[in-house]
Amino acid sequence: MPIYAAPVRETRFILDHVLDIGRYSNLPGFASATPDLIEAILEEGGRFASEVLAPLNRSGDEEGCTRHADGSVTTPTGFKDAYRQFCEGGWPTLSAPEEYGGQGLPQVLATAISEYVLSANHSFEMYHGLTAGAVAALVIKGSDEQKATYLPNMVSGKWTGTMNLTEPHCGTDLGLLKTRAEPQPDGSYQLTGTKIFISSGEHDLAENIVHMVLAKITGAPDNVKGISLFVVPKFLVNADGSLGDRNAVSCGAIEKKMGIHGNSTCVMNYDGATGWLVGEAEKGLAAMFIMMNAARLGVGLQGLAQGEVAYQNAVAYARDRRQGRALKPDARDPNARADTLFVHPDVRRMLMEARAFNQAARALILWGALQVDLSRRAQSEEERQLADDLVSLLTPVIKGYLTDRGFEVTVDAQQIFGGHGYIREHGMDQFVRDARIAQIYEGTNGVQAMDLVGRKLGKDGGRAVRSLFTAIATDIADAKSAGDPGGVAAVLEPALGELQAATMWLAQNGMADPDNAGAGAYSYMDLMGLVVLGWMWLKMAVLADRLKDEPGEDRSFHDAKLVTARFYAERELVGANALRRKVEAGAESMMALPAEAF
Amino acid sequence: MPIYAAPVRETRFILDHVLDIGRYSNLPGFASATPDLIEAILEEGGRFASEVLAPLNRSGDEEGCTRHADGSVTTPTGFKDAYRQFCEGGWPTLSAPEEYGGQGLPQVLATAISEYVLSANHSFEMYHGLTAGAVAALVIKGSDEQKATYLPNMVSGKWTGTMNLTEPHCGTDLGLLKTRAEPQPDGSYQLTGTKIFISSGEHDLAENIVHMVLAKITGAPDNVKGISLFVVPKFLVNADGSLGDRNAVSCGAIEKKMGIHGNSTCVMNYDGATGWLVGEAEKGLAAMFIMMNAARLGVGLQGLAQGEVAYQNAVAYARDRRQGRALKPDARDPNARADTLFVHPDVRRMLMEARAFNQAARALILWGALQVDLSRRAQSEEERQLADDLVSLLTPVIKGYLTDRGFEVTVDAQQIFGGHGYIREHGMDQFVRDARIAQIYEGTNGVQAMDLVGRKLGKDGGRAVRSLFTAIATDIADAKSAGDPGGVAAVLEPALGELQAATMWLAQNGMADPDNAGAGAYSYMDLMGLVVLGWMWLKMAVLADRLKDEPGEDRSFHDAKLVTARFYAERELVGANALRRKVEAGAESMMALPAEAF
Repeated sequence: MPIYAAPVRETRFILDHVLDIGRYSNLPGFASATPDLIEAILEEGGRFASEVLAPLNRSGDEEGCTRHADGSVTTPTGFKDAYRQFCEGGWPTLSAPEEYGGQGLPQVLATAISEYVLSANHSFEMYHGLTAGAVAALVIKGSDEQKATYLPNMVSGKWTGTMNLTEPHCGTDLGLLKTRAEPQPDGSYQLTGTKIFISSGEHDLAENIVHMVLAKITGAPDNVKGISLFVVPKFLVNADGSLGDRNAVSCGAIEKKMGIHGNSTCVMNYDGATGWLVGEAEKGLAAMFIMMNAARLGVGLQGLAQGEVAYQNAVAYARDRRQGRALKPDARDPNARADTLFVHPDVRRMLMEARAFNQAARALILWGALQVDLSRRAQSEEERQLADDLVSLLTPVIKGYLTDRGFEVTVDAQQIFGGHGYIREHGMDQFVRDARIAQIYEGTNGVQAMDLVGRKLGKDGGRAVRSLFTAIATDIADAKSAGDPGGVAAVLEPALGELQAATMWLAQNGMADPDNAGAGAYSYMDLMGLVVLGWMWLKMAVLADRLKDEPGEDRSFHDAKLVTARFYAERELVGANALRRKVEAGAESMMALPAEAF
Repeated sequence: MPIYAAPVRETRFILDHVLDIGRYSNLPGFASATPDLIEAILEEGGRFASEVLAPLNRSGDEEGCTRHADGSVTTPTGFKDAYRQFCEGGWPTLSAPEEYGGQGLPQVLATAISEYVLSANHSFEMYHGLTAGAVAALVIKGSDEQKATYLPNMVSGKWTGTMNLTEPHCGTDLGLLKTRAEPQPDGSYQLTGTKIFISSGEHDLAENIVHMVLAKITGAPDNVKGISLFVVPKFLVNADGSLGDRNAVSCGAIEKKMGIHGNSTCVMNYDGATGWLVGEAEKGLAAMFIMMNAARLGVGLQGLAQGEVAYQNAVAYARDRRQGRALKPDARDPNARADTLFVHPDVRRMLMEARAFNQAARALILWGALQVDLSRRAQSEEERQLADDLVSLLTPVIKGYLTDRGFEVTVDAQQIFGGHGYIREHGMDQFVRDARIAQIYEGTNGVQAMDLVGRKLGKDGGRAVRSLFTAIATDIADAKSAGDPGGVAAVLEPALGELQAATMWLAQNGMADPDNAGAGAYSYMDLMGLVVLGWMWLKMAVLADRLKDEPGEDRSFHDAKLVTARFYAERELVGANALRRKVEAGAESMMALPAEAF
């Protein structure tokens, strides 16, 4: 049976020191997030994740979801009860607005808890995770009546939400979508069409399911400019808030997937279903992007979450499994016939790569969540703008880079088990299969790279990326003044130079030939991901060095941080130049073959 | 339904030009391999793979193998009939020795066919593939009686073979194995123990199964030096060659695996089973390595084979699926609302990376198989030695590097399908799950890296690696004289320099601290793999450039080779310096953490 323990101490190090969230106690929501409350929430959330959700992860994978003849769907055994406990514990409400029953706590805290829930049970988390996205869209774009009708029950978790974008013939290219919305005399719409890959589309966890659906109103332009967003509840809601008629939306099938079997991924059929326009007509894509951006940060978190739980299991196996002998005689256990896997450098390599990724990814994601908070709650417009610039720029990196590296970490963790990782007994194959989806959904990672290079880099004349470079350069200077603990600054500085050069190259050559931007986008995303994780290690190394001798601090914890920072610098950051060269290779050889040559 | 067509033309380009096998027509076996025969075998083998085996791949994955209460195992529907056709077609006999009913053809030809079989149906191929390894061990180490008893039926495919190494508590560290062999008065042994992860351990395809089993004879040293190899048939064989009593070896369970469901991976219980010593007592490991080295080349081939079939399916999807618009207006299809996926640079990137890998991997593997042939059949001892040196050196690279990159290619091919790759309908998830095993079995890729650095590099004072460097440098000089077609030489030369520097560093620093060798081993294997695939591109680019204007040649085929060679140089070889720096980072930060810090 796989194990999982929430890394509360790691989270605390980031919240307390790297982000120093105490300094924001003057901002709304942060004031109530006292150190004691944070500690209690993390500990309790971690316990819930490891004790209630983790034990359902493998059984959920084996059992999957079942669609019945009437279109209803049963989730795996135990999910319904766990979801009830999840709601009773108030977990869905953490960062939701207080006016709809939320606790109004910072996003950064809710994100920390989401990591634990995802590590414990990725499929389970998605029932709530999609709801949070739908809530965000309704809060910003919904009418007062829509907010009153849906939000309190969605915030409490009594109802869940979904995002309905993809259709059989279109995913990335939403301009092609065919779902139609026919205006009705009462101001509602009748929606007709088929949506696929709808996570949590139908299930037995909640009393109602609130579908957020992209469709084209009859007569609207048949392209991306004609898309509107609708709210379509599974059960219509009466004026008094009680549930009314069953709406004409149903689950036509459950997709057979490689992983996340515990989540019901549905084909949803809209057969003249009643829906209401959310926000303005033909502005649906903008509304959907509110959900999408929140969802993308959440998907990046999935890369880390799977990497973390896979790492924990690999460590447990390495501690337990004895195989072979240390290369150095003095490292051999004289009381055993073989040493634990820890003695083997190549096992260490995979474990250290996992640590170096997981810890920096956690710092980056929590930093990103803090920017979301600051973009809404900071006192000055300037601070809000800077935070929004930075998180908007890095959202595709957090989604794309962290899910790619997180997948690699799960694969390496499985590798440490040898043949025992390939059989299902230890559950390692599930981490790999579940982690794989995060590279695909909410915009494939290739789409993320194009979003970064084609949209985010040049926005506002490159203001965001300049702000990022300034922030990193400032921290490098500070680290050097502090003696460059962990030796990160010495390697991060040239790596930042490579990133700046690649940025310049794209600005110059992407303009001349857009295929140059497209051809370099993925390597550029990789390069920016490499550098920003290095930035996180720089911050962590400086802090660990400062804290390690302080009274009350655990020196070994900080020493480990410094070793891991050095490992990242020596073994990861050295890849920066190669990535820059890939960016600068341009489009020629990539695009030269005629399609028929493939 | 996934597609597959054997890439016969690609194989021919390598056999005819890159390897120029016509020049070996004076050697045994090669003489009969006339161009016409080769063409006929490749075409017919390719047809058999795509028409008979490929259609059983997905159904085999869905259905899996079934163990019955009596321990017997049924393979997926259709496998038995396909295996009968496989044997009737003479496919198992291609390169087997003529004295046992084989055709005595070169290994390089059998390897080409194995690629097609593996691409079409990885699980199916393993029933034969392991037999070939067992045959190799018996040919070299078996007694005359053992050869006469087993080989004719194993060569024909009437009987299959297995390799029994792993036990529940030991895989890599075979010194720990517990299976015991008790000598009997008649010269036979009684074997008792449990073996796990035994591919093709029990099934319904063949009349008999010949298990090659590692065990310790009672009283032998309880370590790696006490291991002997035994042959243990499922049914004992009477003096007249007919099948006698059922032996006391049985399948206790079928492992539940992430993939290769069509192959019966068994727990095998030996309950006083009758076996016979193969070769000398306590020299079992050396005998096993005969099988192992053949098997490792075969596993490297699996990386390519999965990469190839996954690529073919991604190309078909990219051709069919229309989504979004080309970045450049003049590349847009005016007659459609969206363009095919080919217009998107990032889709191209994944397809070109797949081509660049597959084509060079095929060249490297066929080159390696030719070295195996030459090591046995070349006329001079010097030529035989050189061939043996080179293939021994590169066997871990072919196994480790090609399965890692092959896995990445399958993952990227799945990525091109977006969400449609994650659901099972298109079969892409099976390619990923099946490809994954190749990184693990026959020695994990970490073990391959240690074999390369710890054993192969320093052997005979580094003679093999010096020969490799000389061969590559000679080809670089030749390419430069030819005007450096594809621009490979210009990038391969410094990449070779990085490899040479890393080799020097390991020689100097691995001696001082063996953990330095262990810590750098994996990046060193990656670096050597990168360079030798670049070497193959160098050879292919020179030939394509020479052939492209010749009458009767298809210019577009050679132009595509030159474009792909340039792509490899610009986008892959540029990673050499980063890998060298990882090697030279040494063991310090990798090994510094105490085990309890993980």
